[in-house]
Amino acid sequence: MQAKAVTLCQRPVGMPKKEDFEVIDIDVPAPADGEIQIQNVCMSVDPYMRGRMIERKSYVPPFQIGEVLTGGAIGKVTKSGHPDYKEGDYVSHSWGWREAVTTSVEGVQRLGEIVAPPSAYIGTIGMPGMTAYVGLLEVGALQDGETVFVSGAAGAVGTIVGQIAKLKGCRVIGSAGSAEKVALLQDELGFDHAFNYNDGHILNHLREAAPDGLDVYFDNVGAEHLQAALMCMRPFGRIPLCGAIATYNDTEPRPGPNNLSMAIGLGLTLRGFIVTHFNHLADQFRNDMEGWVTSGQITSKETVFEGIDQAADAFIGLFTGANVGKAIVNL
Amino acid sequence: MQAKAVTLCQRPVGMPKKEDFEVIDIDVPAPADGEIQIQNVCMSVDPYMRGRMIERKSYVPPFQIGEVLTGGAIGKVTKSGHPDYKEGDYVSHSWGWREAVTTSVEGVQRLGEIVAPPSAYIGTIGMPGMTAYVGLLEVGALQDGETVFVSGAAGAVGTIVGQIAKLKGCRVIGSAGSAEKVALLQDELGFDHAFNYNDGHILNHLREAAPDGLDVYFDNVGAEHLQAALMCMRPFGRIPLCGAIATYNDTEPRPGPNNLSMAIGLGLTLRGFIVTHFNHLADQFRNDMEGWVTSGQITSKETVFEGIDQAADAFIGLFTGANVGKAIVNL
Repeated sequence: MQAKAVTLCQRPVGMPKKEDFEVIDIDVPAPADGEIQIQNVCMSVDPYMRGRMIERKSYVPPFQIGEVLTGGAIGKVTKSGHPDYKEGDYVSHSWGWREAVTTSVEGVQRLGEIVAPPSAYIGTIGMPGMTAYVGLLEVGALQDGETVFVSGAAGAVGTIVGQIAKLKGCRVIGSAGSAEKVALLQDELGFDHAFNYNDGHILNHLREAAPDGLDVYFDNVGAEHLQAALMCMRPFGRIPLCGAIATYNDTEPRPGPNNLSMAIGLGLTLRGFIVTHFNHLADQFRNDMEGWVTSGQITSKETVFEGIDQAADAFIGLFTGANVGKAIVNL
Repeated sequence: MQAKAVTLCQRPVGMPKKEDFEVIDIDVPAPADGEIQIQNVCMSVDPYMRGRMIERKSYVPPFQIGEVLTGGAIGKVTKSGHPDYKEGDYVSHSWGWREAVTTSVEGVQRLGEIVAPPSAYIGTIGMPGMTAYVGLLEVGALQDGETVFVSGAAGAVGTIVGQIAKLKGCRVIGSAGSAEKVALLQDELGFDHAFNYNDGHILNHLREAAPDGLDVYFDNVGAEHLQAALMCMRPFGRIPLCGAIATYNDTEPRPGPNNLSMAIGLGLTLRGFIVTHFNHLADQFRNDMEGWVTSGQITSKETVFEGIDQAADAFIGLFTGANVGKAIVNL
């Protein structure tokens, strides 16, 4: 069969543009023995993919020009050459950015029984949700009743960070890039306070929102956000370093926070992580998060794009602030 | 009785100057009930004192102009109004920068039996030694056989960091500010590699010394050292943030490392600390370090200044690079 797929036709410089991407036709052959053919239901776009578009050494290798991009996706098995996978099984895998794929089963996980729409398994119950979960509870060592600040709070990870922190009885502050997002955080997602980082100084907002300081700052953004949060940390505070989306389109390295040495006297911990460092917690995460989602304690916010022709728009929206919650591309 | 003491007569701007300090005469009365009179044997000068000379909120309150400075010192009890302290007892306390003091016993620790010269108890077996010990073993979570880099390696803390790491079977790299210090580290203190950070690029030195990367970077210096070390960290490396002496005389905040986001993919931990966060380990530290010193496994390097008139020189020498090992002022 034939399917559409997206390639990187040139490396983005600064903000990614639609012309950096091309939609092409690919062949999706019948599966050989041990292989399966998957029709994708939806695919994920994630900030970390921006890093893979740069030619450099990193924790994941760079994308190559002209190759079909990869990334998280949920699909349904359409033909199976493997005894453990049968037609109609929902699977989670990394062959996104295409409508269909034929692949060995390596790295393909059967979802089994699902308790939410398939898209949740690349969102709240998938990688971004697990990033929030391990970042807050393991890396951030969150304690009940603490004060938590999360930047990029209206994003796929941030919306979940804030809601988990509320579940743990914490006071939660979030920053986002528009008044609409601020309203979402406060009115729909239960944040105690949210502010628009494009309106006024971040440090002033934080001091007003958390006059007694922050125990945990969950950093999705880096740059000015990190510097301002450092000014407000309480003794022995923790800063999970999850992302630095403010800097991902920088063409020159940007200076770091000028107040990092505040960590010394205060005994602060800044700890970087990626979700795969915590794969051993995957079952525990899914169990907890499915419980919270089905009980209504955690709400999944999604921005949905229809069709593979919109995949590049979905990705670009991560950096322009166009997306709210998890960006999903239905295929 | 009368004694000499040192006051701060004006707040240093940039590098401290001798004129910022004044030697005055003070009265040291006979002790009242519950008090003791101490003749100081030697006093400590430490980089953290520079921060206390600035009028700002910090983990220790700022020094006040015209008041006698304070800091670590070792003394002998000359008169006692307290039943637990008797004449001739060695004590460790924070009434440095003066030849003698009469004080309540609060914060005054009897040293008991000592196994090294009194000055060791404000050096290797005192605060700087314990800073090295807890920073490397607790904050840095050092594992046997790892590769360790310490900056300010010829200083009071750095000389001990390197020697403890060698005791733990690690490969040890140090940076210092002169060829003489580099020779000391390599020839006398057992460092595997040392380099002069004033000669060539720190990053080039590090890549040559540790082609397979660093597991622990013990940061005494901050600034360029931290940025270069971040470039060389291995996955899940640890960076105890102990000091940032490169920046202590800055009159404007200096930008931080432009590559802090490398911590994300590598799962690095940067953790600030001060020694008093680990007071619960004081007995264990003293026991271990006295053992290492008496067995000859750890060598104490000192730069000795004679008399309180040289106290300001000793302090200034911390920042000019004049001192090697622990700067001691004999009183």
